[in-house]
Amino acid sequence: MIIVMKHGASREQLLAVKQRIRDLGYKPHVIHGATCNVIGAVGDERGKAVLQSLESMDGVENVMPILQPYKLASREVCPEPSIIELAPGLTIGGEQLVVMAGPCSVEGEEQLIETARAVKAAGATVLRGGAFKPRTSPYAFQGLEEEGLRLLDLARQETGLPIVTEVVNPRDVELVARYADILQVGARNVQNFPLLKLLGQQDKPVLLKRGMATTIKEFLMSAEYILSEGNRRVILCERGIRTFETATRNTLDISAVPVLKEQTHLPVVIDPSHSTGHASLVPSMCYAAVAAGCDGLLVEVHNSPETASCDGPQSLRPSDFAIVMEKLRQFAAAADRKL
Amino acid sequence: MIIVMKHGASREQLLAVKQRIRDLGYKPHVIHGATCNVIGAVGDERGKAVLQSLESMDGVENVMPILQPYKLASREVCPEPSIIELAPGLTIGGEQLVVMAGPCSVEGEEQLIETARAVKAAGATVLRGGAFKPRTSPYAFQGLEEEGLRLLDLARQETGLPIVTEVVNPRDVELVARYADILQVGARNVQNFPLLKLLGQQDKPVLLKRGMATTIKEFLMSAEYILSEGNRRVILCERGIRTFETATRNTLDISAVPVLKEQTHLPVVIDPSHSTGHASLVPSMCYAAVAAGCDGLLVEVHNSPETASCDGPQSLRPSDFAIVMEKLRQFAAAADRKL
Amino acid sequence: MIIVMKHGASREQLLAVKQRIRDLGYKPHVIHGATCNVIGAVGDERGKAVLQSLESMDGVENVMPILQPYKLASREVCPEPSIIELAPGLTIGGEQLVVMAGPCSVEGEEQLIETARAVKAAGATVLRGGAFKPRTSPYAFQGLEEEGLRLLDLARQETGLPIVTEVVNPRDVELVARYADILQVGARNVQNFPLLKLLGQQDKPVLLKRGMATTIKEFLMSAEYILSEGNRRVILCERGIRTFETATRNTLDISAVPVLKEQTHLPVVIDPSHSTGHASLVPSMCYAAVAAGCDGLLVEVHNSPETASCDGPQSLRPSDFAIVMEKLRQFAAAADRKL
Amino acid sequence: MIIVMKHGASREQLLAVKQRIRDLGYKPHVIHGATCNVIGAVGDERGKAVLQSLESMDGVENVMPILQPYKLASREVCPEPSIIELAPGLTIGGEQLVVMAGPCSVEGEEQLIETARAVKAAGATVLRGGAFKPRTSPYAFQGLEEEGLRLLDLARQETGLPIVTEVVNPRDVELVARYADILQVGARNVQNFPLLKLLGQQDKPVLLKRGMATTIKEFLMSAEYILSEGNRRVILCERGIRTFETATRNTLDISAVPVLKEQTHLPVVIDPSHSTGHASLVPSMCYAAVAAGCDGLLVEVHNSPETASCDGPQSLRPSDFAIVMEKLRQFAAAADRKL
Repeated sequence: MIIVMKHGASREQLLAVKQRIRDLGYKPHVIHGATCNVIGAVGDERGKAVLQSLESMDGVENVMPILQPYKLASREVCPEPSIIELAPGLTIGGEQLVVMAGPCSVEGEEQLIETARAVKAAGATVLRGGAFKPRTSPYAFQGLEEEGLRLLDLARQETGLPIVTEVVNPRDVELVARYADILQVGARNVQNFPLLKLLGQQDKPVLLKRGMATTIKEFLMSAEYILSEGNRRVILCERGIRTFETATRNTLDISAVPVLKEQTHLPVVIDPSHSTGHASLVPSMCYAAVAAGCDGLLVEVHNSPETASCDGPQSLRPSDFAIVMEKLRQFAAAADRKL
Repeated sequence: MIIVMKHGASREQLLAVKQRIRDLGYKPHVIHGATCNVIGAVGDERGKAVLQSLESMDGVENVMPILQPYKLASREVCPEPSIIELAPGLTIGGEQLVVMAGPCSVEGEEQLIETARAVKAAGATVLRGGAFKPRTSPYAFQGLEEEGLRLLDLARQETGLPIVTEVVNPRDVELVARYADILQVGARNVQNFPLLKLLGQQDKPVLLKRGMATTIKEFLMSAEYILSEGNRRVILCERGIRTFETATRNTLDISAVPVLKEQTHLPVVIDPSHSTGHASLVPSMCYAAVAAGCDGLLVEVHNSPETASCDGPQSLRPSDFAIVMEKLRQFAAAADRKL
Repeated sequence: MIIVMKHGASREQLLAVKQRIRDLGYKPHVIHGATCNVIGAVGDERGKAVLQSLESMDGVENVMPILQPYKLASREVCPEPSIIELAPGLTIGGEQLVVMAGPCSVEGEEQLIETARAVKAAGATVLRGGAFKPRTSPYAFQGLEEEGLRLLDLARQETGLPIVTEVVNPRDVELVARYADILQVGARNVQNFPLLKLLGQQDKPVLLKRGMATTIKEFLMSAEYILSEGNRRVILCERGIRTFETATRNTLDISAVPVLKEQTHLPVVIDPSHSTGHASLVPSMCYAAVAAGCDGLLVEVHNSPETASCDGPQSLRPSDFAIVMEKLRQFAAAADRKL
Repeated sequence: MIIVMKHGASREQLLAVKQRIRDLGYKPHVIHGATCNVIGAVGDERGKAVLQSLESMDGVENVMPILQPYKLASREVCPEPSIIELAPGLTIGGEQLVVMAGPCSVEGEEQLIETARAVKAAGATVLRGGAFKPRTSPYAFQGLEEEGLRLLDLARQETGLPIVTEVVNPRDVELVARYADILQVGARNVQNFPLLKLLGQQDKPVLLKRGMATTIKEFLMSAEYILSEGNRRVILCERGIRTFETATRNTLDISAVPVLKEQTHLPVVIDPSHSTGHASLVPSMCYAAVAAGCDGLLVEVHNSPETASCDGPQSLRPSDFAIVMEKLRQFAAAADRKL
């Protein structure tokens, strides 16, 4: 921590801050500046939010952290990229790109199976589909719940594709974990800490979506909640952040890919569907995501977008998805990745 | 809903959209414009997210909702402001302003009781204090949990102040409801729908905080989740939104007060502490909030901010809080409110 | 400046950074931390953007400035609030609140004179009105230009109110300065540096509006451009920032008032009209602004909002403005100000 | 325009709005809805901001535009992508990708010539470099001005590369146009309308940067200012928007590429340097931009970033730039473009 003293702070105020730093178990180190003094508090500052409270002391201008607040998610602890097993024979984080595709929500057997076969045929290696749907409106379709999970299981049997599906309620974690291969945390739950802790105790990989207003630092702290409970299989998913721009549903923060690659060893996946909100924008964002260095994609595909009960406008038709996958192979090659 | 057809859309495309509107139970009504056609879909559009999927049809440019998506929270259903009982003899939403004050988190008996007595003496009528703390870092102090609830109960006995405290996990709703007078939903849980539904089944008022990136429309939809489960005692709390500005922790959206007052009958409370993040900015934001027409305040007060285990920099000292309360009386009078 | 070295940076890298700091005329001061080293560069860091380029050196993690980058706008240089003369007998920054009111744009003699008389009668002490209008669309009304200035002059003669009006083009500064009492810089020109420099050479007060995405720090740097050219009569105007919220045109950053009051001695004015975009929200924002401690208001009033050629929806009718002014007196008294 | 009447608006209010629509030269067309009435105002709504003022009429809930407000920039007017000549033999908007590279600011002959030769050798086809620098601080290096232009001319003679350089002041347009091949408008001037109008009268291509808080709609309206003055050679440049995220200098809005490609025929260029602010993030953003379908890149390259007087941290070294260009060829091929 760096504690900046106010211009004109007294010697007594400086001494009091130094003493308090010592009381907290740190070593104070003063730099006498041209217009103000600065104190470095030497020691491991992680987990010590209490240092921030020094800002309430007289004469203190502000308190600036130096270190990133996460440990297990950091490159320091794990310098090499993590390669995570998603299902037998399928990993993410290595050379192989992983495309997870399917409908926003499971609506029925025909819809799911038809879509699942189509995405498998086009080259997807994971099937996505929501059974528990967090919807903005209490009057909107809330998902088929356990019936939806059973349909996903059926689709897995039909296609051999492992399943990624969302869990919303800590109460449902065990239930969803019985069916799913990968447990998804939605953007609205990125700081649902009881849910994250519980997922940290599961023996299944977790796909953690960034929230609409979550900084990259906070995103990694949420991953840290899962990691620190013992589950090291965390996949990060950038899905657009909320900005002033309304031409897209959210703004895809594509530069989060290289930023995350510098700061963490965890694999990074891009969701081009929720970020843009419009199917016509999805193909180019798939290509851009792979070119930016992501490890996988999470794409909404629906066999009949115009009758979808949820997120139709952003869903690709199976035929369009197949074209995207074809083109994607060339970008994957340029990025030294396999698809 | 208004469906805008693309410039150059064919007659067949227009007919197909009209047919689909009829299939969904709406009456299509076409306006032939100078450069494009527009279709109004007449019928109650609430709860019909599926209309949005028309955007996937050929020839459709975009789909624009006309109605606000909430019902029970709206002024249409309830034209007069709701006056909500918080505890015997204490209501919010009427002439009386309600000041809820206390520490960010309950840290111990002395800290809590001392602070509770001070805020009571200064004129606060509700005691705030967190026992379950959602913290960005898994390594930060997570709250005293049930022990914290017991201390809050003790403080209530000592001071007679009713208690508002946060519930984070659906699992803990019953436990917290046993101790609390008012159940608080934090900003990170504004779209934790299982939690909201459960709170909708409680017989306690709920203080719902707006999320950092929640639009006012979404905020009211979250209130609607609680209302639609049967609990009509919802209090809305604006606590700052996330913007590009870093001089404050968040940006207090003060204009949310009159916007909410136009759109809903529910009481509105302002949290000047989390929005600004700095104690020196809190007094003027208290005054502004009351002048803007809010029904109450949620203010962090700590008997020793510089040793607080959480949010010290934004906590008022008891002596400063007393000065704020004194001054606030004049603004309350100017706003035709009592304090 | 604080230069944070990377975890694992070599001794050679540290030495190279220290040498470069010395080359730039600063004194390096190293703190050896638990996990990384930190270097303080002691010296006046203002005007030395080049220090930031140290971030390109091997082994450097990041570079953090300590000091605020402005001088003349700061409280350090001028600890007391500046009281600025706007016109003979009229100052801003002292006890007296200044209400500047009038139409968004000057549209004609009747419109302007009628509105000017009304705002004067209600207690406004400055008349606002745009003759040069920066409009998003090239097809929208662009203002009456010099004819508009002549009408403003006429309105001043009729009412005795001094005039604030916008200047958009450096070429027009002299022309506008011949007519105006106060020169206004619009939000879109907050970083139009050639315009700011020219205004710094005028002998007229300047009302500088914050841009839609301007941080408070950048805002003060723009003020510094004017101040550093010799014109010390700068008034700051917060007029809403751009956020994700669409219920209002912009989000009024009310906490900018106490933040600016801490950081600068310059007077602060609030524009409740452009920030909210809706006339019904303007009164409560006027009250909140005064309660927050601002020195004045800039309010749009139009004698016929529904036929306004610009910004009708946010303009108060004269009768409503009179009611606001009446109410405002009570809030001014509570804030120890005169109106 | 769609005018939504309030729930409960009277018949008289509806009639008054209809009459006013007719008075403004539009044809009103009412849809009687389930809970409120909606009026379509048929006619060319572009250039008629005055319709928005209907929102001030009694009984009106809100007014929603249907059409995009730009004409000449739109795909309707020009369905095919514009191919714009930048210099003899060099076009943008067709198959050929255009890479514009060079230092942020021209600092001296050696710096410029050395960098120019390096970017030419690596395959750039336009040299960028600022002679007039809009800087946040009045105390920062403001550019070499005309001397900088002369050095750019020299570099052009040495390398044969055409020059893109910024013009900040309307007064300097003619001067800069004498030296430059392409005139650049910086992000801070995207709504400097007098400057845009003047550039619309020049016979040189204009590279228009999006502002930090400019919506895509506003961005196209700024292009429309240039186009409507007669200059049809406008190139759009996305350079990052301002969001809450601080890990990057700005957030690169990569989805602006496909959105702009749908809405306009103008070429689109990406600036990966100002958007990210860190050289290590630039390569992957170059690849992503090309994969997303942009027509060119604007990249900062400096022969000695650690001593740059401006924006060193985001400048690539020539050797790194050469590696990026090499890799970029593969992404260009995957995107069916030439480099």
